[in-house]
Amino acid sequence: MNPVEFIRKKRSGQTLSRKEMHDFISAYVTGEVPDYQMSAFLMAVYFSGMSREETAAFTDVMLHSGRVIDLSSVPGRKVDKHSTGGVGDKVSLILAPMVAACGVPVPMISGRGLGHTGGTLDKLESIPGFRTNLSIEEYQRVISETGLVLSGQTEEIAPADRKMYALRDVTATIESIPLIAGSIMSKKLAEGIDALVLDVKTGSGAFMQRYEESVELASALVSIGRAMGKETIGFVTRMNEPLGTAVGNWCEVVESVECLRGKKCPDLMEVTYVLGGAMVFLGGKASSIEEGMRTCESAVWSGRAYEKFLELVRVQGGEASYIENPGKYPKAAFSPRVESPASGYITGFDTRLIGVLATELGAGRMSVDDDIDPKAGILFKKKIGDHIEKGETLAMIQTDRPSRGRPWEERLAALISIGPEPPERTPLILSIVDGEGAKPWGGS
Amino acid sequence: MNPVEFIRKKRSGQTLSRKEMHDFISAYVTGEVPDYQMSAFLMAVYFSGMSREETAAFTDVMLHSGRVIDLSSVPGRKVDKHSTGGVGDKVSLILAPMVAACGVPVPMISGRGLGHTGGTLDKLESIPGFRTNLSIEEYQRVISETGLVLSGQTEEIAPADRKMYALRDVTATIESIPLIAGSIMSKKLAEGIDALVLDVKTGSGAFMQRYEESVELASALVSIGRAMGKETIGFVTRMNEPLGTAVGNWCEVVESVECLRGKKCPDLMEVTYVLGGAMVFLGGKASSIEEGMRTCESAVWSGRAYEKFLELVRVQGGEASYIENPGKYPKAAFSPRVESPASGYITGFDTRLIGVLATELGAGRMSVDDDIDPKAGILFKKKIGDHIEKGETLAMIQTDRPSRGRPWEERLAALISIGPEPPERTPLILSIVDGEGAKPWGGS
Repeated sequence: MNPVEFIRKKRSGQTLSRKEMHDFISAYVTGEVPDYQMSAFLMAVYFSGMSREETAAFTDVMLHSGRVIDLSSVPGRKVDKHSTGGVGDKVSLILAPMVAACGVPVPMISGRGLGHTGGTLDKLESIPGFRTNLSIEEYQRVISETGLVLSGQTEEIAPADRKMYALRDVTATIESIPLIAGSIMSKKLAEGIDALVLDVKTGSGAFMQRYEESVELASALVSIGRAMGKETIGFVTRMNEPLGTAVGNWCEVVESVECLRGKKCPDLMEVTYVLGGAMVFLGGKASSIEEGMRTCESAVWSGRAYEKFLELVRVQGGEASYIENPGKYPKAAFSPRVESPASGYITGFDTRLIGVLATELGAGRMSVDDDIDPKAGILFKKKIGDHIEKGETLAMIQTDRPSRGRPWEERLAALISIGPEPPERTPLILSIVDGEGAKPWGGS
Repeated sequence: MNPVEFIRKKRSGQTLSRKEMHDFISAYVTGEVPDYQMSAFLMAVYFSGMSREETAAFTDVMLHSGRVIDLSSVPGRKVDKHSTGGVGDKVSLILAPMVAACGVPVPMISGRGLGHTGGTLDKLESIPGFRTNLSIEEYQRVISETGLVLSGQTEEIAPADRKMYALRDVTATIESIPLIAGSIMSKKLAEGIDALVLDVKTGSGAFMQRYEESVELASALVSIGRAMGKETIGFVTRMNEPLGTAVGNWCEVVESVECLRGKKCPDLMEVTYVLGGAMVFLGGKASSIEEGMRTCESAVWSGRAYEKFLELVRVQGGEASYIENPGKYPKAAFSPRVESPASGYITGFDTRLIGVLATELGAGRMSVDDDIDPKAGILFKKKIGDHIEKGETLAMIQTDRPSRGRPWEERLAALISIGPEPPERTPLILSIVDGEGAKPWGGS
């Protein structure tokens, strides 16, 4: 393999063979191909794209650059979910114990928040004592014993992706659908799963704001999963307002626990039940997604999902007493109330900037070294379409940080639009992508 | 300047400011911007192009990354010529002394051959004793004394271009018109010239095979030259057969000397006179290109151009006796004759592969470390449009290397097409590009 000819071929829009792709990426992992050739290649991919075959080969090399966890000794079909990330997206916290309570083992390796989106690991770590840095052996033990595990990526998982992601970050080559898809799937496929459900967000709070791009990404992800022999179903879901009512870490855990204990949180649980239904279906415990959804609902109503969550917290070292009695958690120094500046209907949220604001409150990180304050966050009292009176509470802020410049509550109020008419209702679950392509979601 | 945002801007097709361009390239030269960011940028330029302004800023930074030679103490307007390279292109050897003999100082920094094209330095070095590695001080002294100097690029000239060219070579980012233009012009503008004439080749033996691309490159070069305050005229000339009859090093010197002594070599001298005429015009010694051409012709007919060449050879350490008596030069071990396999008209040459074959004979280098055999080469006996009988001599080969595989003469014969009808005649000088754009060349 001549690296220059390889780059030239992609640059000229030709298709690379599986072997060429394999040899180039492997040589990058070993250091034979230097960063400067990889970054030229990545930029050529940004412009020329990659075929399904190329993307699958790319993913395969990254997947096998590290350890692929073997969970064959765990009985049943192991199913995970991946979301492209949003604001207030605490679905995993509810979904994983709920699906596990339905008898489908859920081995989940999650990431941390960065930029405007939160991360499941950060949320879990807000539970005092909860450990997410499990070794692969601990990971295997927890899933065997609990039917569920929620952990962070270890150094041994897809090191090629880590190396490449760091390079993409500094060369403006993040925003490429095949590269994003390969990066996600190489990590997910290393978890030891049999099937995967994907939640690709679209809208003002999503990584991909345009619907067509989100469908394209979902299709690329599903295609890779299937090419690698894993049943994969993708959903494109709307992220034009925070999911549920809490944005932060501990406050999202609290909201998740409330939902696990039966609280009605329409949008959050709609997404959770659809994704969970698909997982239960792929896990072989239901004959359709719709039946899987009903199985999930009964796991929540019966309390089994909540019990599974408590079990997980205990097994991973967390102090379950905080889950049982959230009131004993430390309080933030400041909790300003955000008043509505007008009467009318909530018409929209600038969701990405709400994520950024939450980060500034202490709930997230703009750079990987930033510390997180688990108490920091926002509790929204209204959702899109709700009516509000002037002076009524829009949201409550929790932070230890005094605002620099304009008060926090003013800044947050400016990110919420209020109009005289209720906005048109749009579905939350926009489409389902399976082996036959994308189609509108009509279930539930 | 944030390098990632800079790359993203170019990637997204936005225009970079002069200052942004300046800061990024400067930071690359000092090593602050690493190779992997520069190569991502270069690939983004490959796809997104550069505006005239961006290209000028890019060139300017590379030019000023090293020493810009001051020739203000040399009286008269200094004019150079640059060619994008071809097969048998010995124009500089005839042109430089011819123009100098017309009273226009010619400070010329040339390159070596690489790949299928020859280089002026290699040709000059085939003259025993001729030194091309002049220091900048020697360069300044020779042009002052002789009105002419032909030397190689020193380490001090445009180091940024050298660094960037090496990176482009290994990242498949050579083939970008603004990058090529910036690279050429940063070196030429460092020579201390007042004006420049460009010969952009097009056709089977050229770097740019498509006419439209050659015009685009010529326009980019002229635009940069003018933006930098140097009068610049470009010509697009046909390179669909070797220029003249000799391809090699010493044999091209011999052909050049013959032309300087008045031998008729129609295509070679047509190009030489047009380029020379433009140089004499830009040098202020003629009121038009056409008048400059007549001035050049008289410099050749009078013997002054040849005398100037002899003077140059002596000043740069060459043994002029070889010029005066080429017969004393060592002979190649093998000199196979290439017979025509058919009767008919010469309809075409695979000029690029003829250049590659000459390299294999020893006349060029495929990699920068290869040695050159000055004796090796090809002497063509026929040009496109000539009639030939079966068995008549097409060309003579000179080499010390026995052929591996098929005999040299068979391989060369296979690169020349013969047909029953003479091909349509096409002009050699296709167009002229000046400040007003490209137009067909109607002069001579």
